[in-house]
Amino acid sequence: MWDRFLRACRREPVDATPVWFMRQAGRYMAEYRKIREKHTLLEICKTPDLATEVTLQPVRALGVDAAILFADILLPLEPMGAPFEFAAGEGPVFEAPVRTAAAVERLRVIEPDELDYVLRAIRQIRGELDGKTPLIGFAGAPFTLASYVVEGGKSQNYANAKRMMYDAPETWHALMHKLSEVVRRYLRAQVDAGAQAVQLFDSWVGALSPSDYRDYVAVHVRHILADIETTGVPVIHFGTGTAALLESMKEAGGSVIGIDWRVPMEQARRRLGADVALQGNLDPLLLPAPRSLLTRRIDEILAGVGPGSGHVFNLGHGILPDTPPDAVKWVTDTVHERSAR
Amino acid sequence: MWDRFLRACRREPVDATPVWFMRQAGRYMAEYRKIREKHTLLEICKTPDLATEVTLQPVRALGVDAAILFADILLPLEPMGAPFEFAAGEGPVFEAPVRTAAAVERLRVIEPDELDYVLRAIRQIRGELDGKTPLIGFAGAPFTLASYVVEGGKSQNYANAKRMMYDAPETWHALMHKLSEVVRRYLRAQVDAGAQAVQLFDSWVGALSPSDYRDYVAVHVRHILADIETTGVPVIHFGTGTAALLESMKEAGGSVIGIDWRVPMEQARRRLGADVALQGNLDPLLLPAPRSLLTRRIDEILAGVGPGSGHVFNLGHGILPDTPPDAVKWVTDTVHERSAR
Repeated sequence: MWDRFLRACRREPVDATPVWFMRQAGRYMAEYRKIREKHTLLEICKTPDLATEVTLQPVRALGVDAAILFADILLPLEPMGAPFEFAAGEGPVFEAPVRTAAAVERLRVIEPDELDYVLRAIRQIRGELDGKTPLIGFAGAPFTLASYVVEGGKSQNYANAKRMMYDAPETWHALMHKLSEVVRRYLRAQVDAGAQAVQLFDSWVGALSPSDYRDYVAVHVRHILADIETTGVPVIHFGTGTAALLESMKEAGGSVIGIDWRVPMEQARRRLGADVALQGNLDPLLLPAPRSLLTRRIDEILAGVGPGSGHVFNLGHGILPDTPPDAVKWVTDTVHERSAR
Repeated sequence: MWDRFLRACRREPVDATPVWFMRQAGRYMAEYRKIREKHTLLEICKTPDLATEVTLQPVRALGVDAAILFADILLPLEPMGAPFEFAAGEGPVFEAPVRTAAAVERLRVIEPDELDYVLRAIRQIRGELDGKTPLIGFAGAPFTLASYVVEGGKSQNYANAKRMMYDAPETWHALMHKLSEVVRRYLRAQVDAGAQAVQLFDSWVGALSPSDYRDYVAVHVRHILADIETTGVPVIHFGTGTAALLESMKEAGGSVIGIDWRVPMEQARRRLGADVALQGNLDPLLLPAPRSLLTRRIDEILAGVGPGSGHVFNLGHGILPDTPPDAVKWVTDTVHERSAR
């Protein structure tokens, strides 16, 4: 069933639970590492031929039910005026963290054609997939993007981002407004280019209390998702460490809510109700576990979410670099088999 | 009311909500930094005169309702056979991570007299406090300690600890059993030496799914807490990122459950019921926030937990080094004022 993934996002009946994996294209695959020997991450993102090849690798190798565009959530930040580099083993490092009203003022609200290479990659991937597998586009959510530009890279506790929220809420909201408007335009352009679903990655929003989410984040997510929902494509709203935020995230938007491994699917279903699809939620560190344990955890997930309800099987976060590819393939097949109706 | 803190732990009526802060003794205080100029962290821990002085500094400066022993959760690991150093800016680094059955086998289940300097510090602090402020002892919980010895230091995703759980559950349980028996004896010795309450720090347990908590952690926490509860002193059971684990943590033990800022107190109370006290839960990064916002968040916490029910005001995690001390004092006073009955 070519549209198993899209049907599950819409809570329509499916022949088996669809499967894809965050970071299904990545360093755990020999095919990917071979390309990375010759090209940087950003070169791959900016070269549609390479981005297309890397996007298709896991579709061919794993038989997953969706392809996801190979790109990076930080790509819009460079043309906005916040350039960064990937330091070896450290993640992104920004030349100049954005921490003042003046620095926020200088950020440009770009048009998506400044990320034309992404849109060209989407068109090329759609051509190659030839209607056999749907393609997911994506973007970072404003809080997660803001956390990178304000901190200047990865962070343990988001001290600078929270300081801006609390001490200078107008500056914070101005930053979030710029980011959310860019993300809105960018996701819309991805849909126009052919993305058949999109995922909004609010990977680090779990650092916030529900009060802070309500006061400093929700309105900006809604600004994006209310618009994208009018396109008719499914929107997956994802974060980690969000056990206390799930209801707020659903309220902010999304036809599918991403659940990390910390929340049992049965609880997520009970709390979020039947009018939304769920995506998740295997701990990525379970992929290399003994197959008997892995089967038990897969069964807990499938049983927890309940039969017939919209469920997209995925991990709670991305595949880690030292994961054995055969385990990823085995989980894909096992979920299909054990959920077949 | 000298025993406001102990009464709140026991859910008895109090004149005002008691307040203490995790890491209330620490680098944010000039008095502490002065001692740290001349002594390492471990020297302070191992010298009862210094540990006593540092423990008393925030009691004098802030007027908090409890003192907490100045020590480190990792102290038992050195005599067990897993020595470590504090690398500048990096946290602890273990000489040899414990990752095999043989390495677990070599760990010694020590008697608390090998940590005699802690017990002497407790007796000295009790003498100095002279019945005016109760003293909290503490230890790391077995999962959090295991995460350090298996990873060899701090970790982002606990990959090695989880690998041991999943691939070698007997080795994992052997490690957890040794750690929990040491912690049980150590906390009991702290109570015998005069600790009037104890806190079990399972700071990193929020990395686990409820299934993993049930299968790999709960029995070991119960081994400790079932015994300590027979001493009659209140036990605070604390973790961060535990929004999906609170019920499991309560089941594993503790007369007070520590709540981090991610879970609204009103929700924690609803989920955990009235038969347990709650501790928390201000985001430490709110301490330097404008006073109007801080007051609002304090009021949300006080209202959320409900009047008359057992509540110990605290942060969701420790005070950060660049926190202004006057903000900590202001929060202490404000909680007392706004909760006065």
